[in-house]
Amino acid sequence: MPNPIVTFTSDFGVHDWFVGVVHGVVHQICPAARLVDITHTIAPGDVAAAAFVLEACAHDFPPGTIHLAVVDPGVGTGRLALAAAAHGQMFVGPDNGVLDWAFADGGARVHVLRDERYFRHPVSRTFHGRDVFAPVAAHLAAGTPIERLGPPHAKPARLATPRPRAVDGRLDGRVAYIDRFGNALTNVGADAVAAAFPGVDARALTVEIVGRRIRGVTQSYGDAPIGTLVALIGSSGRLEIAEVGGHAASRFGFGRGDPVVVHAGD
Amino acid sequence: MPNPIVTFTSDFGVHDWFVGVVHGVVHQICPAARLVDITHTIAPGDVAAAAFVLEACAHDFPPGTIHLAVVDPGVGTGRLALAAAAHGQMFVGPDNGVLDWAFADGGARVHVLRDERYFRHPVSRTFHGRDVFAPVAAHLAAGTPIERLGPPHAKPARLATPRPRAVDGRLDGRVAYIDRFGNALTNVGADAVAAAFPGVDARALTVEIVGRRIRGVTQSYGDAPIGTLVALIGSSGRLEIAEVGGHAASRFGFGRGDPVVVHAGD
Amino acid sequence: MPNPIVTFTSDFGVHDWFVGVVHGVVHQICPAARLVDITHTIAPGDVAAAAFVLEACAHDFPPGTIHLAVVDPGVGTGRLALAAAAHGQMFVGPDNGVLDWAFADGGARVHVLRDERYFRHPVSRTFHGRDVFAPVAAHLAAGTPIERLGPPHAKPARLATPRPRAVDGRLDGRVAYIDRFGNALTNVGADAVAAAFPGVDARALTVEIVGRRIRGVTQSYGDAPIGTLVALIGSSGRLEIAEVGGHAASRFGFGRGDPVVVHAGD
Repeated sequence: MPNPIVTFTSDFGVHDWFVGVVHGVVHQICPAARLVDITHTIAPGDVAAAAFVLEACAHDFPPGTIHLAVVDPGVGTGRLALAAAAHGQMFVGPDNGVLDWAFADGGARVHVLRDERYFRHPVSRTFHGRDVFAPVAAHLAAGTPIERLGPPHAKPARLATPRPRAVDGRLDGRVAYIDRFGNALTNVGADAVAAAFPGVDARALTVEIVGRRIRGVTQSYGDAPIGTLVALIGSSGRLEIAEVGGHAASRFGFGRGDPVVVHAGD
Repeated sequence: MPNPIVTFTSDFGVHDWFVGVVHGVVHQICPAARLVDITHTIAPGDVAAAAFVLEACAHDFPPGTIHLAVVDPGVGTGRLALAAAAHGQMFVGPDNGVLDWAFADGGARVHVLRDERYFRHPVSRTFHGRDVFAPVAAHLAAGTPIERLGPPHAKPARLATPRPRAVDGRLDGRVAYIDRFGNALTNVGADAVAAAFPGVDARALTVEIVGRRIRGVTQSYGDAPIGTLVALIGSSGRLEIAEVGGHAASRFGFGRGDPVVVHAGD
Repeated sequence: MPNPIVTFTSDFGVHDWFVGVVHGVVHQICPAARLVDITHTIAPGDVAAAAFVLEACAHDFPPGTIHLAVVDPGVGTGRLALAAAAHGQMFVGPDNGVLDWAFADGGARVHVLRDERYFRHPVSRTFHGRDVFAPVAAHLAAGTPIERLGPPHAKPARLATPRPRAVDGRLDGRVAYIDRFGNALTNVGADAVAAAFPGVDARALTVEIVGRRIRGVTQSYGDAPIGTLVALIGSSGRLEIAEVGGHAASRFGFGRGDPVVVHAGD
């Protein structure tokens, strides 16, 4: 690609210089890259949140995109640094589960970052975002084959992310993320709903969350009056619960991990 | 233009992946574009605030700039999606008033976004920023003529923005926006002041706001001692009230909608 | 450089349009530039914080980088506007100390911004970021020699930044900055430690901060159990105090200006 996209997700915040420095490293090595900040306000060390964000947005980027994800509480310890080729894209980050989605279908080619020619020197013990991950992502963007970075790695760290379970005619899931608009995004994908309730009209499903019961899975935020709680398949392809014109999470107290149940009928 | 500027204003916040995804879509379609974030912390659904920001900053961008503005509480309903050519620039957003300034002089060429070849597919019901507005802005940046996007539209939605009124030798306006520095920007432009008080020296004007009386319209924040409340024509060409070295809005309780009066003499 | 890096540090915040407008000006004058935001959440008018950030990150950018720093409470008054060539890079900002680090080694070539051909017109009295500093930075990026901007300036404003002092076998410093992770970065550089304690193993040093005593200067956040307070040389080459897996500043109440003492032995 003449102008490869490099995305960047971290817990670096926006108050310090850490994000800017990473941008500088990428631009220096691969000036043609288009560097796209996903978010840098992941709570410090919240690997699971970063992994969720990466999974939610990676679909939306074109083949060949390189995703740089640095939430790295173990920086400076023995944890490995990885690059993975998966889903037609590439992923760079620490071996702590932040790249979980890259390994989801079992088809990832994973390499340990070992060849120091692709690092920035000297390599600090505390800022591998700058010294290891950013330069490697930039070299991948500039065309370096992933195999050159280091040896293959068979067992990358995975997250113990709860997956939805279909039992006794119901689908048990959880709230996975609260977005800015207060929408509760779940770990229940549209495909899981379709598989659990074959042939059932979405309007005949019921969604339960924290004592609330929502009749029907709708299609947009605008289908019901202001203040109504609705369940819909959102833009990242998963079941979400939203308040029309409001902030469902703060009004109803929804939070990450809350159980969500889908069943047919009332 | 070899490197067209695309600005981006939204209420998407900076914590989720929504802004990043829009960047990805624009870069994929028009890698030459220079994508400039204006702000993404417009309060959710605050169309008027986004319209104000767009009006305040559009002047500062060169001819040919494309402004993408997505504050879209009606996404997924019947509201139209628009592109407009006005003031030598282009504007893309929902038909809810967010593009109000584009229509201010009556000379805009407005088109409904209808030709789905310029959309991203599949088009979700909840994220037209990604699927409709961003790809259209990028195609405009890449040179697609606005006429190709869809049929002309004669009656775009306008905002009921209060305009300043000159009556009985005084000019009645309102606070339109509080900026980071606590400055109260008004809806009173420098031209309205000049028209209402022809030949009057700015130093002979008096500005009243929430019980405070300011003698003279000055030229910069630094013309008076720290803590002084001053009235000046700010960098976006409108009357603003500032505290030298302080945060006027929090100290004096100024807020959007507060009345501001300008008159000659004491 | 075909794609010069322009960094941008300010107190403009991220809620208004000020940062976006500056980006637009730079892209218009020098589309090839890679514009990197360092931070825009410097507290309004906090020149010292911006100077610290600039010093902390400039090392990490390649030669030829142009650093634009706009924390400018004196905008519109008589304060000068400057450009400086130093440390193989260039620096643009007001003459109020924000560029302090550029002058640290005495080798800077400093010029007053006087030639208005390099400004944006009309020049406002309140937004020199847009009208003076950004266009000058962009012209430098596009190859304009610094000498053309205006006459040399012999006495740029300096900050009265406290420097660490070695006395009686101890090194007295201060906390200079609290970062997002709650780490307390000090004004004590690794070189000052080495000079004050020649031949002493870092593990034999003791660091005291606000009544806390830390044995040994370690190498990474991960060397000790969660909750431990550690002293280390951080990624910007200075002594910092961190809590492993925690936020030291909020837990222990560390703040800018707090005294930090290093000595050998217990």
